[in-house]
Amino acid sequence: MSETKKYRVEVCFSPEEFDLYKQEYKAVVAIDVLRATTAICTAFQHGAEKMIPVSTVEEARALKEKGFLAGAERNGQIVEGFDFGNSPYSYMGEHIKGQTLVLTTTNGTKAINRAAETHEVYVGALVNLDAIIKLLIEQPTDVLLLASGWQGKFNLEDSICAGAITEALLESGLYMSDEDSTIAAMFLFKKAKDNYFGFLKASSHRRRLKNLNLNEDIKYCLTPNQTEIIPVYRDGALVKL
Amino acid sequence: MSETKKYRVEVCFSPEEFDLYKQEYKAVVAIDVLRATTAICTAFQHGAEKMIPVSTVEEARALKEKGFLAGAERNGQIVEGFDFGNSPYSYMGEHIKGQTLVLTTTNGTKAINRAAETHEVYVGALVNLDAIIKLLIEQPTDVLLLASGWQGKFNLEDSICAGAITEALLESGLYMSDEDSTIAAMFLFKKAKDNYFGFLKASSHRRRLKNLNLNEDIKYCLTPNQTEIIPVYRDGALVKL
Repeated sequence: MSETKKYRVEVCFSPEEFDLYKQEYKAVVAIDVLRATTAICTAFQHGAEKMIPVSTVEEARALKEKGFLAGAERNGQIVEGFDFGNSPYSYMGEHIKGQTLVLTTTNGTKAINRAAETHEVYVGALVNLDAIIKLLIEQPTDVLLLASGWQGKFNLEDSICAGAITEALLESGLYMSDEDSTIAAMFLFKKAKDNYFGFLKASSHRRRLKNLNLNEDIKYCLTPNQTEIIPVYRDGALVKL
Repeated sequence: MSETKKYRVEVCFSPEEFDLYKQEYKAVVAIDVLRATTAICTAFQHGAEKMIPVSTVEEARALKEKGFLAGAERNGQIVEGFDFGNSPYSYMGEHIKGQTLVLTTTNGTKAINRAAETHEVYVGALVNLDAIIKLLIEQPTDVLLLASGWQGKFNLEDSICAGAITEALLESGLYMSDEDSTIAAMFLFKKAKDNYFGFLKASSHRRRLKNLNLNEDIKYCLTPNQTEIIPVYRDGALVKL
């Protein structure tokens, strides 16, 4: 047996439970595959300079009035008066380049802000999956994978993404985990990995978005490794690591 | 398509999240396979008259001083000054017959008490699995399967038990569920069902109990359908349905 210290990785299925986990970990990967953290990665890929995640629509509106480009999503839809929701397709193109954007979403930005109060926070999604794994292997640390869930409840797509990260970290030999949530996330990932889209066809969130005609968004969000960018929280905003 | 109304079933992975679910359901099955709800079923099987679940050791001690037989478990161990913890083996035998017992445990009795404030609460475990399923099929209702977890966190054994109940209810045709937690619980159950003991070998709770030399307890708790008794909460105490 090697005597090398192993770092810990664990999955937290809901921001509602974050307080139960936070003292044991140094870094957090905030995950909201459908769609906030995917949209954030996409914005940086398209040249955004900064993104300010805010928890309430009021904060987003106040910043929009100061001249920021601002996105606001609640229950899958664009909030009235805003130009964007959290569709990744809204964060592609020349209008994004060099901008500081403001974003508030139902689940993801709350998870980021809650974790950022106390932790180093990286933004993870399937679109930057391998980049997140590479970072955590090159700079290992005790890390909590924080699923954003849906209004505080467990969701499948974030759990699967967390399971994918966990499996790779354990395979690296640098990490250990003995927690039930981590075991469950890895099982769900193994079950889903050959066909994320098919596996999630029954999921509540996918149905919710499908009903809003967002199938193209879902396909984009479930396609791994479209960017190597890792957004990180620094001094009140997300920037490229 | 049949027009018959379907009842809803959903899994809540932690009592910490109960408030997010409770308004949608009429009945709750509280599940703490290792070991509180198993011990409660066992006590009734051995002739207990009533069980008073209390949330704190202080309440249990006060009732013990009034003359009740009282069990208290924290972190897998019997609390000093009490005759029992939550080992099901403590709740077998003549000393149980006709008694009103008091019980407080790390997770299970808290889940029961939290749900009992607002809901009809049944006590479920693997030992009374088919009885619970039969009840919910014969008297269908919108039901939340409440896993007790471990100190508020997700655990595997309660999730698997909830997955087993869910699968049977959906197969009955009387129930529907479209929630991600329910889908996940059913996947975990399908993965585990041929060998609960093997599947749970990596689980944190099983290791915790194994370290306390409680392997016999674990085997008992993971053996389905040892009783047809369903404890139900009525006026401050659990009684046989």
